Amino acid sequence: MNEELIRSALGVLDNSYAPYSHFHVAAAVLTDTGNVYTGVNVENASYPAGICAECNAVAKAVSCGERKIRAVAIVGRDSQGKSSGYVSPCGICRQVLREFSVPQELKVILAKDVGDYKETTLEELLPASFGPESLG
Amino acid sequence: MNEELIRSALGVLDNSYAPYSHFHVAAAVLTDTGNVYTGVNVENASYPAGICAECNAVAKAVSCGERKIRAVAIVGRDSQGKSSGYVSPCGICRQVLREFSVPQELKVILAKDVGDYKETTLEELLPASFGPESLG
Amino acid sequence: MNEELIRSALGVLDNSYAPYSHFHVAAAVLTDTGNVYTGVNVENASYPAGICAECNAVAKAVSCGERKIRAVAIVGRDSQGKSSGYVSPCGICRQVLREFSVPQELKVILAKDVGDYKETTLEELLPASFGPESLG
Amino acid sequence: MNEELIRSALGVLDNSYAPYSHFHVAAAVLTDTGNVYTGVNVENASYPAGICAECNAVAKAVSCGERKIRAVAIVGRDSQGKSSGYVSPCGICRQVLREFSVPQELKVILAKDVGDYKETTLEELLPASFGPESLG
Repeated sequence: MNEELIRSALGVLDNSYAPYSHFHVAAAVLTDTGNVYTGVNVENASYPAGICAECNAVAKAVSCGERKIRAVAIVGRDSQGKSSGYVSPCGICRQVLREFSVPQELKVILAKDVGDYKETTLEELLPASFGPESLG
Repeated sequence: MNEELIRSALGVLDNSYAPYSHFHVAAAVLTDTGNVYTGVNVENASYPAGICAECNAVAKAVSCGERKIRAVAIVGRDSQGKSSGYVSPCGICRQVLREFSVPQELKVILAKDVGDYKETTLEELLPASFGPESLG
Repeated sequence: MNEELIRSALGVLDNSYAPYSHFHVAAAVLTDTGNVYTGVNVENASYPAGICAECNAVAKAVSCGERKIRAVAIVGRDSQGKSSGYVSPCGICRQVLREFSVPQELKVILAKDVGDYKETTLEELLPASFGPESLG
Repeated sequence: MNEELIRSALGVLDNSYAPYSHFHVAAAVLTDTGNVYTGVNVENASYPAGICAECNAVAKAVSCGERKIRAVAIVGRDSQGKSSGYVSPCGICRQVLREFSVPQELKVILAKDVGDYKETTLEELLPASFGPESLG
C-alpha cells in the first residue's frame, strides 16, 4: 500500500506549479474509505497565497466527502528532475492533516522513490497538536 | 454554461467542511480545456489553516495539469440549508484565481441558485492586481 | 500626511526578510487614533507561511489595541535597492485591511518614493468585498 | 525570564481580535538581542486570512530588524476571561518560528498564568522540520 501511494504521488508530480521556488512537490492521501487523492504544490506570485501539495490532496479528498485520512505519501523533485530527498511536510500541512486524522494512526511516508522511503506518523511530526478539541 | 457551472458547485456543497463558521461554500471552475473542477471550503481548528472553496477548486485543476481558468461559479449555504446570498470571493481567492487567468477574461459567477446569479470578472473584483509580472 | 506615511514605510524597508523572492516590501498604516505602525514582508522556506508587509503592519496595530485603519502606504525594493515600482497589495493584504476599515474611506498609497506615489482606496482595489457582515 | 515573558503576553491579551472563534490568544517572543515583542491573534471574516498571535509577535520582531528568536510564551483566554489551558501553537506558528530559530534551542512556554506553565522546545513540537536548508 505504501508503494502504491508513492506511485500515485509520483504520477502527478509533473503537474506541480512551482515557478518561484522550482521546488516541485506532490502528495497522495489514502482515506478510511480506501480512496486515494493526489495533490501538488500550487505557488502564487504572492507567496503566502500558495497551496502546499499535502493541503491540495486533503482539500480534494474533503471536497469529495471524505473526512478521515489514514496515510499520506510525499515526494519532491527540483527543476532538473532530481529528487529533493525525503521531503518533510511543513507546519501548515501537518496542521491541515491534523484536522482529518487521529495523529497516532496517520502514517506519513516521506519518499525519494517507490522503493526508497521513510515512514513516520503525524503524532511524531506534530506532537501536542492544536486541534478541534483545543477550541473548547 | 453558467448554469452548468453553478450546478456543479451546488453538487458538492454538502461536502463543505465548516464546523466553525457554519458558512458552507462551494465553487466550480471551468478551464480553457473545457474541464470543470469543484471545491468546497475546508476549515481548520486553527482558522488560518483553512482552505477556501475557490482555492480548493483551483488547486484541484492545477494538480490535474490545468493552467488557465476561464470561469468560476460560487455558491453558499448556512447550516440550515438557506442560501447565503451572492457570496463574493475573499481576497485570498481572488489572488489565487489571478495566477491562473487573464483577469479581464475570467468570468466570476456569484449564484444563489441555478437560475439566480450575478456575473462579473476578476478584473472587476481585483483591479490593479499583484501578479507574476509584479515580481519583475 | 501621505509623505510622512511613506517615510515611515521606507524607514523599515531594510528590515524586510525576503531571502526567497528578493522582493522587499514595507508598509505603514495610520489608525483612527493617529498612530502609525510599520511592517515588512516576512518570508518562510514554506512559502505559504510567509507574512506580507501590509498584514504585518495591520497585525501590529491590532495587537496594540487599534481597530480602525485610515490609510496605508506601501513601498518595494529589489535586492539591488532599486524601487519595485508602485507595489500593489495582493489579495490577502486587501482582505486583511478590509476587516479593519471602511473600504471607501481607506486611503491606499502606492509609493516609489516620498514624492512619487499614486493614491487609491480599498474600495477601488477590493470592490464587492467579503467582510464581517457577509457571514450573516 | 519565563515569568517576565508570560507577563508580557498577558499584558496584550485584551487586544486579541477574535470575534469569530472567541478564542483569545497572545504571545511574546524573546530575541537574541534581549528584546521582547508581543502579538495577539487577528481574525478575519475570511477565516484563512487570520493571523495567529505567535506569527504576529514574530513578524513584529522581524520588522524591527530581529532575526533570531530564543523563547516564546503563549497564553489563551475564552470570551468569559477564563484560561484556555496550556495553548499549544498550531502548525503554522511552529513553521513561522522555525524560520527564525534553532529548533533545539527555542524554548516554548505554554502558560495558564504567570506561575503556571509548561516548557518545551520547538524541536519537540516540530521535529524533522521543513526549513531553509530543505529548499536545497
